[in-house]
Amino acid sequence: MNIYSRRVAIVGVTGYAGQELDRLLASHPQIQVVGRFASKADEESGAEPFSLEKLGSYAPDVVVLATEHELSMRLTPALLQAGYRIVDMSGAFRLKNAGLYREWYKFEHAAPELLAEAVYGLPESYSEQIHGARLVANPGCYATATILPLAPLYKANAIDSTCTVVVDGKSGVSGAGRQPKPETHFCEVNENISAYGILKHRHTPEMVSQLPGATFDRFVFTPHLIPINRGILNTIVLRPANRASVRSILSDTYATAPFVRVFPDGRMPNVQNVTRTNLCSIGIASSGPNTVIVSAIDNLVKGAAGQAIQNLNLMLGCEPAAGLLS
Amino acid sequence: MNIYSRRVAIVGVTGYAGQELDRLLASHPQIQVVGRFASKADEESGAEPFSLEKLGSYAPDVVVLATEHELSMRLTPALLQAGYRIVDMSGAFRLKNAGLYREWYKFEHAAPELLAEAVYGLPESYSEQIHGARLVANPGCYATATILPLAPLYKANAIDSTCTVVVDGKSGVSGAGRQPKPETHFCEVNENISAYGILKHRHTPEMVSQLPGATFDRFVFTPHLIPINRGILNTIVLRPANRASVRSILSDTYATAPFVRVFPDGRMPNVQNVTRTNLCSIGIASSGPNTVIVSAIDNLVKGAAGQAIQNLNLMLGCEPAAGLLS
Amino acid sequence: MNIYSRRVAIVGVTGYAGQELDRLLASHPQIQVVGRFASKADEESGAEPFSLEKLGSYAPDVVVLATEHELSMRLTPALLQAGYRIVDMSGAFRLKNAGLYREWYKFEHAAPELLAEAVYGLPESYSEQIHGARLVANPGCYATATILPLAPLYKANAIDSTCTVVVDGKSGVSGAGRQPKPETHFCEVNENISAYGILKHRHTPEMVSQLPGATFDRFVFTPHLIPINRGILNTIVLRPANRASVRSILSDTYATAPFVRVFPDGRMPNVQNVTRTNLCSIGIASSGPNTVIVSAIDNLVKGAAGQAIQNLNLMLGCEPAAGLLS
Amino acid sequence: MNIYSRRVAIVGVTGYAGQELDRLLASHPQIQVVGRFASKADEESGAEPFSLEKLGSYAPDVVVLATEHELSMRLTPALLQAGYRIVDMSGAFRLKNAGLYREWYKFEHAAPELLAEAVYGLPESYSEQIHGARLVANPGCYATATILPLAPLYKANAIDSTCTVVVDGKSGVSGAGRQPKPETHFCEVNENISAYGILKHRHTPEMVSQLPGATFDRFVFTPHLIPINRGILNTIVLRPANRASVRSILSDTYATAPFVRVFPDGRMPNVQNVTRTNLCSIGIASSGPNTVIVSAIDNLVKGAAGQAIQNLNLMLGCEPAAGLLS
Repeated sequence: MNIYSRRVAIVGVTGYAGQELDRLLASHPQIQVVGRFASKADEESGAEPFSLEKLGSYAPDVVVLATEHELSMRLTPALLQAGYRIVDMSGAFRLKNAGLYREWYKFEHAAPELLAEAVYGLPESYSEQIHGARLVANPGCYATATILPLAPLYKANAIDSTCTVVVDGKSGVSGAGRQPKPETHFCEVNENISAYGILKHRHTPEMVSQLPGATFDRFVFTPHLIPINRGILNTIVLRPANRASVRSILSDTYATAPFVRVFPDGRMPNVQNVTRTNLCSIGIASSGPNTVIVSAIDNLVKGAAGQAIQNLNLMLGCEPAAGLLS
Repeated sequence: MNIYSRRVAIVGVTGYAGQELDRLLASHPQIQVVGRFASKADEESGAEPFSLEKLGSYAPDVVVLATEHELSMRLTPALLQAGYRIVDMSGAFRLKNAGLYREWYKFEHAAPELLAEAVYGLPESYSEQIHGARLVANPGCYATATILPLAPLYKANAIDSTCTVVVDGKSGVSGAGRQPKPETHFCEVNENISAYGILKHRHTPEMVSQLPGATFDRFVFTPHLIPINRGILNTIVLRPANRASVRSILSDTYATAPFVRVFPDGRMPNVQNVTRTNLCSIGIASSGPNTVIVSAIDNLVKGAAGQAIQNLNLMLGCEPAAGLLS
Repeated sequence: MNIYSRRVAIVGVTGYAGQELDRLLASHPQIQVVGRFASKADEESGAEPFSLEKLGSYAPDVVVLATEHELSMRLTPALLQAGYRIVDMSGAFRLKNAGLYREWYKFEHAAPELLAEAVYGLPESYSEQIHGARLVANPGCYATATILPLAPLYKANAIDSTCTVVVDGKSGVSGAGRQPKPETHFCEVNENISAYGILKHRHTPEMVSQLPGATFDRFVFTPHLIPINRGILNTIVLRPANRASVRSILSDTYATAPFVRVFPDGRMPNVQNVTRTNLCSIGIASSGPNTVIVSAIDNLVKGAAGQAIQNLNLMLGCEPAAGLLS
Repeated sequence: MNIYSRRVAIVGVTGYAGQELDRLLASHPQIQVVGRFASKADEESGAEPFSLEKLGSYAPDVVVLATEHELSMRLTPALLQAGYRIVDMSGAFRLKNAGLYREWYKFEHAAPELLAEAVYGLPESYSEQIHGARLVANPGCYATATILPLAPLYKANAIDSTCTVVVDGKSGVSGAGRQPKPETHFCEVNENISAYGILKHRHTPEMVSQLPGATFDRFVFTPHLIPINRGILNTIVLRPANRASVRSILSDTYATAPFVRVFPDGRMPNVQNVTRTNLCSIGIASSGPNTVIVSAIDNLVKGAAGQAIQNLNLMLGCEPAAGLLS
């Protein structure tokens, strides 16, 4: 087998996530990007307009959708029918329940029959299912930085369920995409901090769905826009259940995970620790009954393109960390 | 009486807070800065080294200490003995209990006998006491942005006391002072976000002390350093007690306060809304049992120099908002 | 005469320059903003759509156009005909020669008959003409920071005319206006520096026109976009003519100018020196035959709204620095 | 020969340049970092204090000095005597004339006898000499971005020598090193632009020395500090000699150079184009007699660590671009 035998096409290659995926795959030892499609035709980018015919001519093993959820939802059924496997970077297939799309995304899902089949593409949790999946829903950036530290604790019943878990997220602006908007105009973001989507952000149901035992009543997520290009820092406050050891649960869970690092006592990650890496770094501090967890990722890597590569590696039989260690 | 009849001296005029105070007082209609002292002699700044003799020659009505808490603690007894009134911008006299200094500041207080007398300089809460005070402890920046929205709720028993109140603070770098340090070197702050002082920050006991009913077990404050010069945004998550109306309590409390604005439903403040003003803006959102409050101040104005001027106005009989409305 | 007797209307009050003008005039002791019009109707801003009827109802003494040059060029003839005096903040009337508009702005001027009458609104050069003008063309931001240091030198024949004068301008992003564009999207500006409009920028003919003896062959201006909100720094390299003293010419010219400061030998201005002031600060260094001049302004104040107020003060008989000294 | 057979030690590995070199060499296919020394002992960094004995125990093929010029000047003679080859990243051996050190660096050179032997480490100009050199002086960051576009033009007599060449440099803050200083404190750099070292910067003699025919009278370099972490943009204004084609000279010179890109007409590089790459991108625009060249590099890569790797590759017989293409 040729070392470049795995073939991937990217739809939406001109956005920040698609561009990062293309850039990272350029140094992947076993995966080749064979097609680059724009969401909208974009001459400067070297990307071509998408068509099924054109896609077919490239014979990709997997199609990565780096598109808005509306377009992902529209393209996916046809792509699956044509026999392609898909990694979708949008939110279109992350939730299992069409009602949650109605409530949090404010639309009627166009392909609800696929929600049950779609595999949530968090390799640390679902590596076996991803391996054989037709449709992988690449997790949201905030969700990744929340679920990685919290899922093992919920699974271990290590969180006092009478107390609310509070997640305060801060993100760089690339998370808002490449399209110019008044709220991402330089002068509006620079020298500013703002909260947005308060109690309404679409990553909230994604988090709650992936945290066994979590409920909307006992889980509050607040995202903030910060004047940096890349990076997410989540600050999570919770109350551990009696005698639970947050640190040992997380250390044990991720002892051999290539991309999750649990920091030793007294050290906390920041965004620069993880920029341009596929790492999720996690720090833990406790005092009295309270525990604070700080997690950091690069929203475009572990929060998007890097995680997509982890999923491609699993789907295509490459080494789990291939292309992600430079 | 001459319109410039009130005389103020500033010790520590070369730091960011002292400099801002000097700048703001330059357009105050009734207060004149008569002396400007450096903490350390600083030739470029036009500030002179402090001495009691030199201070005496300026005959100030009030001395403002824009100094580190060690120096404030050392100067204050002598200044009071010499008959001066003081606004201290450090943390040296904000707590009532010398034990809290031992626990949170890690020092033995040098003038514990003054802690009871010192008035906490939050004009929205203590205007009468400030009016006649000898020693006013100007509040901390994070504490101001926390106590203004939370104190009325605690006072009204409007918070479910079985649930932890979580305050996530984000501050610009001027809050860390002017002294160059590795952690405030441009390249370390820019394109970065970091949490610090987790579960150990000195403003925590200040907040808990000022919030009747709050306890360290049920109150978590986490500050973050953000790559902007000025501004604090606090994101506060709490669970209101049964039937309590957070919005109406805050709106009623601050209906006539010149510097606190409760935003209408659906609007949230950001840092640019308040930069270079003495305002604290407050937004409120609720969903199910949870409420999120976002408060914003300029850390150098309402969080330091502007609030000091509010205190000076009260102490010296000026209009409450004098010098703060341009 | 009532202290608020001068009445000004602003068209384009929702852009950065219009907004700054409105903000600054709020503390002007003698000028009142009586009408606020949006270029396009903008509900959030409190601005109303422009109409001549509505304008008439406010009876303004002067109309300030904080609009794009196309709109300024279209509105001006009708406003003059209706008897209003105008300060236009766009480039529409800064050049005397309609051919320059064709060459540098790429349009045919719609009101070339007004170009001769329009007074270039640089108060340091044209205060008498501004006093009685019907139409004042408020200078461009880069042009202001260039002409103030260079015009006295050209007038004194102090520049070696065989050598090219090189002006390297760096501007904050507010100079590009409020409209979101791909090139002002946060992620494209942040952590970036770019040159633009190289050898084609529209402020070039404005500079050359105002510098007696300058020619396009011997004058090169290159603007750059820098990741800050406000401020312009111009770095100017020239060769003085024999025995000319750049420093004494500039010091003498601006000895009594309220808003131009010539720094002493060894000190150079930076952007923070002038932010939120109407100052233009100028530093000078020489070595061998070469001289470097650095000038700094706030592009929204001395480069736009503050300078417009200087012009309004002259037109309306207020003190030259009224409303600009806080 | 083992693929890791080349052994390099880094002195000064805790500074920004040393750190970047260590990071980049981690993925070099043929070079191994065998020793990491701090300038000053720095426990956190994992670097050890330098000693000749300790260095000897690692048996490096080349020692890279990522140290200040004082330390480089002091260590170099002893290292050469002990038989090591050196790449020095400081300015200590970049100039051929000890008098220039007296004039521009203000010190008496401690090893003037080595200046003649030292090879200026610009691989695009001196690859053969670098191949066999004992001592390579890695160029300055501004100098690299200046000499690459200008040296071919000077060599071809393509510049009108009666006209001054003006280089306006803008650099990110990592160029100022890791040591906290008042002028690199976050609040002093952020929302600011400043010129520094005007007509006195130490890279000026380095540039003039490397540009045949350039003179201090006809060459002006002005550096600026810009609020970004990484990157240099140089804007160069010159007057080409009669009929000289700047574009064709540069295109021809760098047709096969792996790290220099001459942009097509109409396109200009910016800093983001080159960040975290070893590229120098060059754009050219002309109008009438004037030409503007814009060059961009990452100051820590092509301006420091990446260029050092190019030099190591030449000295150690690796492929010219090894370790620099990821």
